[in-house]
Amino acid sequence: MEKLTLFKVGGKILDDAKALKDFLKGFAKVPGKKILVHGGGIFADQLAKQLGIEVEMHEGRRITSPAMRDLVTMVYGGLLQKQLVAHLQSYGCDALGLSGADAALLPATRRNPQPIDFGCVGDIESINVERLEQFLSLGLTPVICPLSWDPLQGEMLNSNADGVACRITEALAHRYETTLLYCFDKAGVLLDLNDPTSLLPSITPSVYSHLKSEAKVHTGMVPKLDSCFRAKAAGAKQVLLASPDQSLAYASAQPFRGTLIELN
Amino acid sequence: MEKLTLFKVGGKILDDAKALKDFLKGFAKVPGKKILVHGGGIFADQLAKQLGIEVEMHEGRRITSPAMRDLVTMVYGGLLQKQLVAHLQSYGCDALGLSGADAALLPATRRNPQPIDFGCVGDIESINVERLEQFLSLGLTPVICPLSWDPLQGEMLNSNADGVACRITEALAHRYETTLLYCFDKAGVLLDLNDPTSLLPSITPSVYSHLKSEAKVHTGMVPKLDSCFRAKAAGAKQVLLASPDQSLAYASAQPFRGTLIELN
Repeated sequence: MEKLTLFKVGGKILDDAKALKDFLKGFAKVPGKKILVHGGGIFADQLAKQLGIEVEMHEGRRITSPAMRDLVTMVYGGLLQKQLVAHLQSYGCDALGLSGADAALLPATRRNPQPIDFGCVGDIESINVERLEQFLSLGLTPVICPLSWDPLQGEMLNSNADGVACRITEALAHRYETTLLYCFDKAGVLLDLNDPTSLLPSITPSVYSHLKSEAKVHTGMVPKLDSCFRAKAAGAKQVLLASPDQSLAYASAQPFRGTLIELN
Repeated sequence: MEKLTLFKVGGKILDDAKALKDFLKGFAKVPGKKILVHGGGIFADQLAKQLGIEVEMHEGRRITSPAMRDLVTMVYGGLLQKQLVAHLQSYGCDALGLSGADAALLPATRRNPQPIDFGCVGDIESINVERLEQFLSLGLTPVICPLSWDPLQGEMLNSNADGVACRITEALAHRYETTLLYCFDKAGVLLDLNDPTSLLPSITPSVYSHLKSEAKVHTGMVPKLDSCFRAKAAGAKQVLLASPDQSLAYASAQPFRGTLIELN
């Protein structure tokens, strides 16, 4: 099977112009078919504040009002995505920015408003694998933002970028030898957040369960790790949690530091 | 040659949710290969005001500061384009939103800052015809916003939507039997703006020159009509200036009102 490398980036790197350019230069050089899934940076929240749009949360999860949905459509689907694509193109990577509506890539259902109405949030129904394969076959590199598409209302919905990366990996894992590189602000899974030597080079479901039972997994890491295990279980050849730099090192077969997901 | 219909929409229709949906429903039904080029509505100016970004003008032409460029990237490339694509997909049209950076569609040169520095404004160098043809062959309908791409800086630039529509028509006119439908707020070219019976059913270069010499062409119409004549001269089969409704009527071979561009 042909190789496919899927990077997921989000968080601080998107707010650091220098670090982002360095990452994109490295990403542009990754050989073979590849996809970039990006989250949002802090700019969406800054802009919401400037516009007086309230950022509502429920137990740490964002509630997406229609105004907030329009704002993230502007920021994720417009500013951020076009900046990523414009840079990648200049670095020689033939990038194509896509939201969930473009080519009907990510049809979604608006999340049930019971028991909590999360607003304009979409649970992805399926991935338009055929279109992704066509774009990849044309030599294009899809750059995908976490906006899904509600076919019933003809509207955009907000989705989670980790989940989008996971679902795309699941959908493509039996068609390509797929590697999922979850880039984030940490070196990987750390037994002690303050001690870089506590980095786990790999993690299995049993170790993960054990760490969770001892409350040693940070709450924010749970959905991320769940997505990683789900992608691996669906047939991804490798799933790695690491910094953007180290993910690039891994993708170019260099020595790297990070946490590999193992099924046993 | 295969037929291609290119619609250019801008102005008020983009700010009128009901009229826009009606237009998009009609557009979705237009048979054969088609492209939609869209300008911006008044929302970009409203948002600029809210954010305290000054809208600078020079002799009626907008000067695009970096802040304004980022804003139109959000509004044209994000909010507006994704809304158009999300609606079209729901109406059964397999739309693909594109900026000038996506698939390197519209490489541009930043306009010479002498004698007037228009800021982040791009003069389009070329059209990536090969990519457009590939997308059309896949059954996709490109939805293109007037943001061009500066390969040297890896940045987005602001371009004129009428110009983008004209350049794309020129580039495709020898590959498809191309019809360019310039949709706008008027019924077409009127000898007297206040008298709908003064609509010219067609206009030739000599009539256009004559009207200009008598100062009977509204200043805002000059670049639009220049673009229309340029597209027609490049080999477009038909170029029509009309309302969105009447353009749709024309595209479905119904009786219509509007001004056809004729070379003689």
